Amino acid sequence: MKPTGPIPEAFASNDQLIIGRKTVQELIDIAVDTPFFAYDVDAIRQRIGRFRAAFPNVQLHYAVKANPHRPLVRAIAAMVDGIDVASEGEARLALDAGMTSADISFAGPGKRDRELETAIRAGITINLESEGEAQRALAIGERIGIRPRLAVRVNPDFDLKGSGMKMGGGAKPFGVDAERVPALIARIVAAGADYRGLHIFAGSQALMVDAIVEAQASALMLAARLSNESQVVPPLVNLGGGFGVPYFAGDKPLDIEAIGVALETALAARDPILTDSAFAIELGRWIVAEAGVYLTRVVDRKVSHGETFLVVDGGLHHQLAASGNFGTVVRRNYPIANALRFGAPVEEEVSVVGCLCTPLDLLGNQVGLPRTGVGDVIAIFMAGAYGASASPQSFLGHPVPVELTIDGDVIL
Amino acid sequence: MKPTGPIPEAFASNDQLIIGRKTVQELIDIAVDTPFFAYDVDAIRQRIGRFRAAFPNVQLHYAVKANPHRPLVRAIAAMVDGIDVASEGEARLALDAGMTSADISFAGPGKRDRELETAIRAGITINLESEGEAQRALAIGERIGIRPRLAVRVNPDFDLKGSGMKMGGGAKPFGVDAERVPALIARIVAAGADYRGLHIFAGSQALMVDAIVEAQASALMLAARLSNESQVVPPLVNLGGGFGVPYFAGDKPLDIEAIGVALETALAARDPILTDSAFAIELGRWIVAEAGVYLTRVVDRKVSHGETFLVVDGGLHHQLAASGNFGTVVRRNYPIANALRFGAPVEEEVSVVGCLCTPLDLLGNQVGLPRTGVGDVIAIFMAGAYGASASPQSFLGHPVPVELTIDGDVIL
Repeated sequence: MKPTGPIPEAFASNDQLIIGRKTVQELIDIAVDTPFFAYDVDAIRQRIGRFRAAFPNVQLHYAVKANPHRPLVRAIAAMVDGIDVASEGEARLALDAGMTSADISFAGPGKRDRELETAIRAGITINLESEGEAQRALAIGERIGIRPRLAVRVNPDFDLKGSGMKMGGGAKPFGVDAERVPALIARIVAAGADYRGLHIFAGSQALMVDAIVEAQASALMLAARLSNESQVVPPLVNLGGGFGVPYFAGDKPLDIEAIGVALETALAARDPILTDSAFAIELGRWIVAEAGVYLTRVVDRKVSHGETFLVVDGGLHHQLAASGNFGTVVRRNYPIANALRFGAPVEEEVSVVGCLCTPLDLLGNQVGLPRTGVGDVIAIFMAGAYGASASPQSFLGHPVPVELTIDGDVIL
Repeated sequence: MKPTGPIPEAFASNDQLIIGRKTVQELIDIAVDTPFFAYDVDAIRQRIGRFRAAFPNVQLHYAVKANPHRPLVRAIAAMVDGIDVASEGEARLALDAGMTSADISFAGPGKRDRELETAIRAGITINLESEGEAQRALAIGERIGIRPRLAVRVNPDFDLKGSGMKMGGGAKPFGVDAERVPALIARIVAAGADYRGLHIFAGSQALMVDAIVEAQASALMLAARLSNESQVVPPLVNLGGGFGVPYFAGDKPLDIEAIGVALETALAARDPILTDSAFAIELGRWIVAEAGVYLTRVVDRKVSHGETFLVVDGGLHHQLAASGNFGTVVRRNYPIANALRFGAPVEEEVSVVGCLCTPLDLLGNQVGLPRTGVGDVIAIFMAGAYGASASPQSFLGHPVPVELTIDGDVIL
């Protein structure tokens, strides 16, 4: 039997699997059919509350790429201070969710002229990824007669240690190398743009407190250094995110309270040039991952050479990451359970495979479950981030998955 | 500088990149915008002609999962003897393409009752993946009063050596273990179903002639053994596919003519029980991969710590496999070129990154290109299979890619 990741606390304590205040059976009736995603808004609310308590003097921004499902984004928009988008489509989503345009920041290395123009017209803050992009944004602002809101994304000279994806340290496609940033700030200020500050993102999905504390302290020092060199005060310093979540056996939830204490200390001692700056942490995965569950029904139970396979009606076309095929080198099991017999003890070892006709479609490799047969429903946890939108939904021609956003008794 | 895969012969000989009889610039004007896919029907026609010459006594089936773009499927349907589908959606696509329902085979481990009923009503051949599925198909046929067309997918007791994905040998979710197949054949024949034969698929994406010859010989022997044990003649034996294509530096195109010679010899000496059987090879990737090109425009050219990055308007949301994030352990470069300066010599080393705000979105890692700047168009080859449909198109909210199917001067 191979290990699985920990079931998130929001669900782990129930006898039967309940999402919001709905049982899985009630949700199946609402979704009409399996497979589907269910997102628990209250779990997100609690999580954001925990962030607020730990970081009383720091803004929280939501990186919408983690989960762009419209009702969910609307719910989150009301609870955060900003939304980070990475395309024109995401920008429209954030505006539609009611976020004030100045609190929407647009990052991403391949912004097109049309996207820059949309952002400038809407008053969205553009996180500049290069000098070339700055030049294009300034020219567009000039042409349409609107003063663009511009921040500078910095490619920091440090990385986030132990992160799942490094986004700083060395040659990167993201941001402007730190040593060239002061000149760029000077240039955009001289051009009359509305300078909004700095964005320093060193990595993501880190589970070590010390690494994040160190990266935040480094980001703070870098922001001060660049601001002193350019002699321009940044209205906002986006310190990046990088807060990881436990996907796999042995992963421990991040102690964000310890990070908060360290950051408060670092902020209290910050360089004078940052005295009037605001600070933000930008999180996607940490806000939504644990709040989502993917539910898929067993279509077949079969034995091959002594191994039991449960074939489900979902698969990697909806949950690519859980199959181990998106940004992971070694495949490991996400937390998984029999959703209709949630409290039942483990009785057997089975492999849970998706319905796609490819050996890649493996959702649970030799996992322990209670006896589970055709008609039972499998829950795969940690499905709130990089699930439906980050999977090849068209692959093999199955229907698009239903997504339910649940706030208590209400489906949003 | 890191190596890239070989540019397919259909394109390699041109001074400028021409797809069908259109230049890239003409195609950009038709697509209106980048990024887009272009599929060359004539390249597919030549390829199928080559198959026909090499395998004069074997049917050719198209595995539509490789590329389900509707105009392309219609074009291919007219050139092949059957289409293999893996979902109700793909079944409808094959029917819409004009394929005779009896020549459509439906494989896949997670077929739902609704899908089985659709297939039985349409007269599609169901490749049974388990005894449970057989039971369900027979019950549905009984209930709706239609005699189902049923074949048996065998989990062979051998694998395809050197294949990118093994689908036989040991415990697998696909098909029925060989030793249980004779009993299943007897059961479906006794139940009055229309028995259509055997489907034996040992693996995919193999580039070694000897491995495929051996797997085909093993499949032929296995089909004979299972048929003798059940004393039932299979109308059709689907020998699987597994023909690989060269994606990476050092990969050599498969010598299918050598495979054809060996298979003809094996067929001539086949067991008497298979005398009246027909034989098929089922190919997806081999038919379409080389015929497709992904075209994406450079939005930014930037330098970070001495490395040059070309940021393009496409990315892994359209071409996940080229980014190395779909079923590959070590990322290597697909063949890549400057499409508007196709014949020009290599002048510099650059990395080509997609527009997504993630370090995973790497399309060409330290590749050699002629000097390439903003506005130039990058061609990524080997994009005809497992491209648009096998990528997370919704990821980061960019538009769905345009797909152009080109037959000479005509856009289908």
